[in-house]
Amino acid sequence: MKEIMAIIRMNKMNQTKKVLADSGMPAFVAREGYGRGKGLVNQAVLEGAAAGNEEAIALLGTKGRLYPKRILSIVVPDAEVGKVVDAILSVNKTGQAGDGKIFVLPVTDSIRVRTGEDGDAAII
Amino acid sequence: MKEIMAIIRMNKMNQTKKVLADSGMPAFVAREGYGRGKGLVNQAVLEGAAAGNEEAIALLGTKGRLYPKRILSIVVPDAEVGKVVDAILSVNKTGQAGDGKIFVLPVTDSIRVRTGEDGDAAII
Amino acid sequence: MKEIMAIIRMNKMNQTKKVLADSGMPAFVAREGYGRGKGLVNQAVLEGAAAGNEEAIALLGTKGRLYPKRILSIVVPDAEVGKVVDAILSVNKTGQAGDGKIFVLPVTDSIRVRTGEDGDAAII
Repeated sequence: MKEIMAIIRMNKMNQTKKVLADSGMPAFVAREGYGRGKGLVNQAVLEGAAAGNEEAIALLGTKGRLYPKRILSIVVPDAEVGKVVDAILSVNKTGQAGDGKIFVLPVTDSIRVRTGEDGDAAII
Repeated sequence: MKEIMAIIRMNKMNQTKKVLADSGMPAFVAREGYGRGKGLVNQAVLEGAAAGNEEAIALLGTKGRLYPKRILSIVVPDAEVGKVVDAILSVNKTGQAGDGKIFVLPVTDSIRVRTGEDGDAAII
Repeated sequence: MKEIMAIIRMNKMNQTKKVLADSGMPAFVAREGYGRGKGLVNQAVLEGAAAGNEEAIALLGTKGRLYPKRILSIVVPDAEVGKVVDAILSVNKTGQAGDGKIFVLPVTDSIRVRTGEDGDAAII
Protein backbone atom coordinates (compact mmCIF):
# COMPACT_ATOMS: atom_id res chain seq x y z
CA MET A 1 0.00 0.00 0.00
CA LYS A 2 1.02 3.62 -0.45
CA GLU A 3 0.62 6.98 1.24
CA ILE A 4 -0.45 9.69 -1.17
CA MET A 5 0.63 13.02 0.32
CA ALA A 6 -1.02 15.90 -1.51
CA ILE A 7 -0.05 19.51 -0.90
CA ILE A 8 -2.88 21.62 -2.28
CA ARG A 9 -4.36 25.11 -2.25
CA MET A 10 -6.54 25.87 0.78
CA ASN A 11 -9.52 26.72 -1.42
CA LYS A 12 -9.38 23.32 -3.15
CA MET A 13 -10.12 21.36 0.02
CA ASN A 14 -13.85 20.85 -0.50
CA GLN A 15 -13.55 19.77 -4.13
CA THR A 16 -10.72 17.41 -3.20
CA LYS A 17 -12.77 15.86 -0.38
CA LYS A 18 -15.56 15.26 -2.86
CA VAL A 19 -13.43 13.57 -5.54
CA LEU A 20 -11.79 11.37 -2.90
CA ALA A 21 -15.21 10.16 -1.76
CA ASP A 22 -16.24 9.67 -5.41
CA SER A 23 -13.07 7.63 -6.03
CA GLY A 24 -14.13 5.17 -3.32
CA MET A 25 -11.23 6.14 -1.02
CA PRO A 26 -12.89 8.65 1.33
CA ALA A 27 -10.58 8.24 4.35
CA PHE A 28 -7.84 10.80 4.83
CA VAL A 29 -6.21 13.06 7.35
CA ALA A 30 -5.39 16.69 6.62
CA ARG A 31 -3.33 19.32 8.29
CA GLU A 32 -2.48 22.97 7.74
CA GLY A 33 0.95 23.88 6.55
CA TYR A 34 2.75 26.48 4.55
CA GLY A 35 5.20 26.06 1.78
CA ARG A 36 6.85 27.21 -1.37
CA GLY A 37 7.79 25.63 -4.66
CA LYS A 38 10.48 26.61 -7.08
CA GLY A 39 8.71 29.94 -7.51
CA LEU A 40 10.26 30.43 -10.93
CA VAL A 41 7.30 30.35 -13.26
CA ASN A 42 6.97 33.92 -14.45
CA GLN A 43 9.29 33.96 -17.49
CA ALA A 44 8.89 37.71 -18.01
CA VAL A 45 10.10 38.38 -14.48
CA LEU A 46 12.94 35.91 -14.87
CA GLU A 47 14.13 37.42 -18.11
CA GLY A 48 13.74 40.95 -16.74
CA ALA A 49 15.83 40.08 -13.72
CA ALA A 50 18.46 38.42 -15.89
CA ALA A 51 18.59 41.65 -17.89
CA GLY A 52 19.17 43.67 -14.71
CA ASN A 53 15.68 45.19 -14.38
CA GLU A 54 15.38 46.29 -10.73
CA GLU A 55 11.63 45.77 -10.45
CA ALA A 56 11.98 42.23 -11.75
CA ILE A 57 14.81 41.53 -9.33
CA ALA A 58 12.66 42.78 -6.43
CA LEU A 59 9.80 40.50 -7.54
CA LEU A 60 12.18 37.55 -7.70
CA GLY A 61 13.08 38.30 -4.10
CA THR A 62 9.54 37.36 -3.11
CA LYS A 63 10.02 33.77 -4.23
CA GLY A 64 11.00 32.86 -0.68
CA ARG A 65 7.53 33.70 0.65
CA LEU A 66 5.64 30.82 2.22
CA TYR A 67 2.01 30.28 1.28
CA PRO A 68 -0.62 28.54 3.40
CA LYS A 69 -1.41 25.05 2.12
CA ARG A 70 -3.44 22.02 3.02
CA ILE A 71 -1.50 18.74 3.34
CA LEU A 72 -3.58 15.60 2.86
CA SER A 73 -2.50 12.02 3.54
CA ILE A 74 -4.49 9.20 2.01
CA VAL A 75 -3.30 5.60 2.39
CA VAL A 76 -4.56 3.33 -0.39
CA PRO A 77 -3.87 -0.14 -1.83
CA ASP A 78 -1.23 -0.13 -4.62
CA ALA A 79 -3.89 -0.77 -7.25
CA GLU A 80 -5.75 2.46 -6.35
CA VAL A 81 -2.80 4.89 -6.49
CA GLY A 82 -3.25 5.96 -10.12
CA LYS A 83 -6.97 6.53 -9.76
CA VAL A 84 -6.62 8.62 -6.60
CA VAL A 85 -3.74 10.69 -8.00
CA ASP A 86 -5.78 11.40 -11.15
CA ALA A 87 -8.78 12.37 -9.02
CA ILE A 88 -6.68 14.86 -7.05
CA LEU A 89 -5.13 16.29 -10.25
CA SER A 90 -8.56 16.66 -11.85
CA VAL A 91 -9.68 19.32 -9.36
CA ASN A 92 -6.35 20.91 -8.38
CA LYS A 93 -4.73 21.65 -11.73
CA THR A 94 -5.32 25.34 -12.53
CA GLY A 95 -2.11 25.77 -14.54
CA GLN A 96 -0.97 28.58 -12.23
CA ALA A 97 2.05 28.52 -9.94
CA GLY A 98 1.08 27.21 -6.52
CA ASP A 99 -1.00 24.24 -7.67
CA GLY A 100 1.00 22.03 -5.33
CA LYS A 101 2.64 18.62 -5.38
CA ILE A 102 1.67 15.01 -4.88
CA PHE A 103 4.14 12.57 -3.34
CA VAL A 104 3.69 8.79 -3.21
CA LEU A 105 5.40 6.96 -0.34
CA PRO A 106 5.62 3.25 0.42
CA VAL A 107 3.68 2.04 3.47
CA THR A 108 4.69 -1.21 5.17
CA ASP A 109 1.53 -1.78 7.17
CA SER A 110 -1.76 -0.21 8.26
CA ILE A 111 -3.78 -0.98 11.37
CA ARG A 112 -7.39 0.04 12.08
CA VAL A 113 -7.34 0.90 15.79
CA ARG A 114 -11.02 0.08 16.43
CA THR A 115 -10.72 -3.54 15.29
CA GLY A 116 -7.01 -4.28 15.15
CA GLU A 117 -7.35 -5.29 11.47
CA ASP A 118 -4.16 -4.80 9.48
CA GLY A 119 -2.98 -4.74 5.87
CA ASP A 120 -5.31 -3.72 3.05
CA ALA A 121 -8.29 -4.72 5.23
CA ALA A 122 -7.53 -1.74 7.45
CA ILE A 123 -7.89 0.81 4.66
CA ILE A 124 -10.66 -0.45 2.37
CA MET B 1 13.93 1.59 11.11
CA LYS B 2 10.30 2.60 10.72
CA GLU B 3 8.05 5.61 11.18
CA ILE B 4 4.90 4.77 13.11
CA MET B 5 2.28 7.37 12.17
CA ALA B 6 -0.66 7.20 14.55
CA ILE B 7 -3.86 9.15 13.97
CA ILE B 8 -5.67 9.22 17.30
CA ARG B 9 -8.48 10.97 19.20
CA MET B 10 -7.49 14.30 20.74
CA ASN B 11 -8.46 13.12 24.23
CA LYS B 12 -6.15 10.10 24.00
CA MET B 13 -2.99 12.18 23.76
CA ASN B 14 -1.95 12.02 27.42
CA GLN B 15 -2.48 8.28 27.76
CA THR B 16 -0.61 7.71 24.51
CA LYS B 17 2.33 9.85 25.67
CA LYS B 18 2.49 7.75 28.82
CA VAL B 19 2.48 4.34 27.11
CA LEU B 20 5.13 5.53 24.67
CA ALA B 21 7.38 6.50 27.57
CA ASP B 22 6.61 3.18 29.30
CA SER B 23 7.51 1.31 26.08
CA GLY B 24 10.98 2.83 26.19
CA MET B 25 10.42 4.90 23.04
CA PRO B 26 9.47 8.32 24.46
CA ALA B 27 10.55 10.50 21.51
CA PHE B 28 7.87 11.65 19.09
CA VAL B 29 6.50 14.63 17.26
CA ALA B 30 2.78 15.41 17.14
CA ARG B 31 0.66 17.75 15.14
CA GLU B 32 -3.00 18.72 14.93
CA GLY B 33 -5.01 17.55 11.99
CA TYR B 34 -8.51 16.63 11.04
CA GLY B 35 -9.75 13.62 9.20
CA ARG B 36 -12.37 11.10 8.45
CA GLY B 37 -12.45 7.35 8.06
CA LYS B 38 -14.85 5.23 6.08
CA GLY B 39 -17.63 6.50 8.34
CA LEU B 40 -19.64 3.38 7.64
CA VAL B 41 -19.77 1.66 10.98
CA ASN B 42 -23.35 2.12 12.12
CA GLN B 43 -25.06 -0.91 10.57
CA ALA B 44 -28.53 0.27 11.65
CA VAL B 45 -28.04 3.54 9.78
CA LEU B 46 -26.62 1.74 6.75
CA GLU B 47 -29.51 -0.69 6.57
CA GLY B 48 -32.02 2.07 7.19
CA ALA B 49 -30.57 4.13 4.38
CA ALA B 50 -30.53 1.11 2.06
CA ALA B 51 -34.22 0.66 2.89
CA GLY B 52 -34.93 4.27 1.94
CA ASN B 53 -35.35 5.70 5.47
CA GLU B 54 -34.89 9.47 5.10
CA GLU B 55 -33.45 10.04 8.56
CA ALA B 56 -30.87 7.33 7.99
CA ILE B 57 -29.95 8.82 4.60
CA ALA B 58 -29.48 12.22 6.24
CA LEU B 59 -27.20 10.67 8.87
CA LEU B 60 -25.17 9.00 6.17
CA GLY B 61 -24.70 12.41 4.63
CA THR B 62 -22.70 13.44 7.66
CA LYS B 63 -20.02 10.86 6.97
CA GLY B 64 -18.04 13.49 5.09
CA ARG B 65 -17.52 15.55 8.24
CA LEU B 66 -13.93 16.01 9.34
CA TYR B 67 -13.04 15.45 12.98
CA PRO B 68 -10.09 16.96 14.83
CA LYS B 69 -7.31 14.44 15.40
CA ARG B 70 -3.80 14.22 16.74
CA ILE B 71 -1.18 12.84 14.36
CA LEU B 72 1.89 11.35 16.05
CA SER B 73 5.13 10.27 14.37
CA ILE B 74 7.45 7.95 16.26
CA VAL B 75 10.56 6.59 14.53
CA VAL B 76 11.75 3.30 16.05
CA PRO B 77 14.14 0.44 15.23
CA ASP B 78 12.47 -2.40 13.29
CA ALA B 79 12.56 -4.66 16.35
CA GLU B 80 10.44 -2.21 18.37
CA VAL B 81 7.58 -1.72 15.89
CA GLY B 82 5.29 -4.44 17.25
CA LYS B 83 5.71 -3.35 20.84
CA VAL B 84 5.03 0.32 20.10
CA VAL B 85 1.99 -0.45 17.89
CA ASP B 86 0.56 -2.67 20.64
CA ALA B 87 1.18 0.07 23.21
CA ILE B 88 -0.72 2.61 21.09
CA LEU B 89 -3.58 0.15 20.48
CA SER B 90 -3.83 -0.64 24.20
CA VAL B 91 -4.97 2.88 25.10
CA ASN B 92 -6.71 3.97 21.87
CA LYS B 93 -9.06 1.08 21.14
CA THR B 94 -12.53 2.02 22.37
CA GLY B 95 -14.40 -0.04 19.77
CA GLN B 96 -16.24 3.07 18.56
CA ALA B 97 -15.92 4.66 15.12
CA GLY B 98 -13.20 7.28 15.15
CA ASP B 99 -10.55 5.29 17.01
CA GLY B 100 -8.07 6.14 14.25
CA LYS B 101 -5.40 4.40 12.22
CA ILE B 102 -1.78 3.45 12.58
CA PHE B 103 0.50 3.43 9.52
CA VAL B 104 4.02 1.98 9.42
CA LEU B 105 6.42 3.53 6.88
CA PRO B 106 10.00 2.58 6.02
CA VAL B 107 12.69 5.06 7.08
CA THR B 108 16.05 5.06 5.30
CA ASP B 109 18.03 7.03 7.85
CA SER B 110 17.75 9.14 11.01
CA ILE B 111 20.09 11.87 12.18
CA ARG B 112 20.22 13.45 15.67
CA VAL B 113 20.92 17.12 14.93
CA ARG B 114 22.69 17.84 18.23
CA THR B 115 25.41 15.23 17.71
CA GLY B 116 25.23 14.26 14.05
CA GLU B 117 24.74 10.59 15.06
CA ASP B 118 22.85 8.59 12.45
CA GLY B 119 21.11 5.23 12.10
CA ASP B 120 19.58 3.48 15.11
CA ALA B 121 21.96 5.40 17.38
CA ALA B 122 20.00 8.57 16.55
CA ILE B 123 16.72 7.22 17.84
CA ILE B 124 17.54 5.04 20.85
CA MET C 1 13.94 10.27 -4.54
CA LYS C 2 13.67 10.84 -0.79
CA GLU C 3 11.62 12.86 1.68
CA ILE C 4 13.80 14.66 4.18
CA MET C 5 11.68 15.31 7.27
CA ALA C 6 13.39 17.77 9.57
CA ILE C 7 12.09 18.54 13.06
CA ILE C 8 13.73 21.79 14.09
CA ARG C 9 13.52 24.63 16.64
CA MET C 10 10.96 27.31 15.79
CA ASN C 11 13.59 30.04 15.84
CA LYS C 12 15.71 28.22 13.24
CA MET C 13 13.08 28.45 10.52
CA ASN C 14 14.46 31.51 8.69
CA GLN C 15 18.05 30.30 8.63
CA THR C 16 16.87 26.88 7.44
CA LYS C 17 14.81 28.44 4.63
CA LYS C 18 17.88 30.30 3.52
CA VAL C 19 20.25 27.33 3.45
CA LEU C 20 17.67 25.27 1.56
CA ALA C 21 17.47 27.97 -1.11
CA ASP C 22 21.27 28.19 -1.19
CA SER C 23 21.49 24.39 -1.61
CA GLY C 24 19.43 24.65 -4.79
CA MET C 25 16.46 22.80 -3.28
CA PRO C 26 14.18 25.67 -2.19
CA ALA C 27 10.83 23.83 -2.31
CA PHE C 28 9.42 22.53 0.95
CA VAL C 29 6.32 22.39 3.07
CA ALA C 30 6.36 23.13 6.79
CA ARG C 31 3.92 22.64 9.60
CA GLU C 32 3.77 23.37 13.30
CA GLY C 33 4.06 20.51 15.73
CA TYR C 34 5.24 19.77 19.19
CA GLY C 35 7.48 17.01 20.39
CA ARG C 36 9.98 15.62 22.75
CA GLY C 37 13.19 13.67 22.40
CA LYS C 38 14.83 11.37 24.88
CA GLY C 39 15.21 14.33 27.23
CA LEU C 40 18.20 12.71 28.88
CA VAL C 41 21.02 15.05 28.07
CA ASN C 42 21.83 16.75 31.36
CA GLN C 43 24.40 14.39 32.86
CA ALA C 44 24.49 16.26 36.17
CA VAL C 45 20.74 15.81 36.57
CA LEU C 46 20.95 12.17 35.53
CA GLU C 47 23.71 11.39 37.97
CA GLY C 48 22.00 13.34 40.73
CA ALA C 49 18.77 11.42 40.15
CA ALA C 50 20.64 8.13 40.11
CA ALA C 51 22.15 9.13 43.46
CA GLY C 52 18.69 9.78 44.88
CA ASN C 53 18.77 13.61 44.81
CA GLU C 54 15.13 14.72 45.01
CA GLU C 55 15.58 17.93 43.03
CA ALA C 56 17.26 16.02 40.23
CA ILE C 57 14.47 13.44 40.22
CA ALA C 58 11.88 16.22 39.98
CA LEU C 59 13.76 17.74 37.03
CA LEU C 60 13.83 14.35 35.30
CA GLY C 61 10.06 14.31 35.66
CA THR C 62 9.85 17.22 33.26
CA LYS C 63 11.29 15.17 30.40
CA GLY C 64 7.73 14.40 29.26
CA ARG C 65 7.04 18.05 28.37
CA LEU C 66 6.32 18.75 24.74
CA TYR C 67 8.05 21.62 23.00
CA PRO C 68 6.79 23.50 19.95
CA LYS C 69 8.67 22.55 16.80
CA ARG C 70 8.65 23.18 13.08
CA ILE C 71 8.39 20.10 10.87
CA LEU C 72 9.75 20.54 7.33
CA SER C 73 9.35 18.12 4.43
CA ILE C 74 11.67 18.48 1.46
CA VAL C 75 11.54 15.92 -1.36
CA VAL C 76 14.83 15.69 -3.28
CA PRO C 77 16.56 13.40 -5.79
CA ASP C 78 18.69 10.68 -4.13
CA ALA C 79 21.89 12.41 -5.19
CA GLU C 80 20.96 15.58 -3.25
CA VAL C 81 20.14 13.97 0.11
CA GLY C 82 23.59 14.34 1.69
CA LYS C 83 23.95 17.96 0.64
CA VAL C 84 20.52 18.97 1.96
CA VAL C 85 20.98 17.10 5.25
CA ASP C 86 24.35 18.80 5.75
CA ALA C 87 22.79 22.18 4.97
CA ILE C 88 20.09 21.64 7.60
CA LEU C 89 22.65 20.45 10.17
CA SER C 90 24.88 23.46 9.49
CA VAL C 91 22.34 25.95 10.88
CA ASN C 92 20.46 23.78 13.40
CA LYS C 93 23.24 22.20 15.44
CA THR C 94 23.64 24.20 18.66
CA GLY C 95 24.83 21.26 20.75
CA GLN C 96 21.97 21.77 23.22
CA ALA C 97 19.12 19.35 23.87
CA GLY C 98 16.21 20.10 21.58
CA ASP C 99 18.17 20.51 18.35
CA GLY C 100 15.79 18.08 16.68
CA LYS C 101 15.96 15.15 14.29
CA ILE C 102 16.20 14.55 10.58
CA PHE C 103 14.52 11.50 9.03
CA VAL C 104 15.02 10.29 5.46
CA LEU C 105 12.13 8.37 3.90
CA PRO C 106 11.87 6.69 0.49
CA VAL C 107 9.49 8.31 -2.02
CA THR C 108 8.09 6.24 -4.88
CA ASP C 109 6.91 9.10 -7.06
CA SER C 110 6.34 12.87 -7.20
CA ILE C 111 3.89 14.75 -9.36
CA ARG C 112 3.82 18.52 -10.02
CA VAL C 113 0.10 19.34 -10.06
CA ARG C 114 0.39 22.35 -12.38
CA THR C 115 1.95 20.39 -15.25
CA GLY C 116 1.40 16.72 -14.41
CA GLU C 117 5.18 16.11 -14.65
CA ASP C 118 6.34 13.20 -12.53
CA GLY C 119 9.56 11.69 -11.20
CA ASP C 120 12.65 13.83 -10.60
CA ALA C 121 11.32 16.35 -13.15
CA ALA C 122 8.58 17.24 -10.66
CA ILE C 123 11.00 18.29 -7.94
CA ILE C 124 13.96 19.92 -9.67
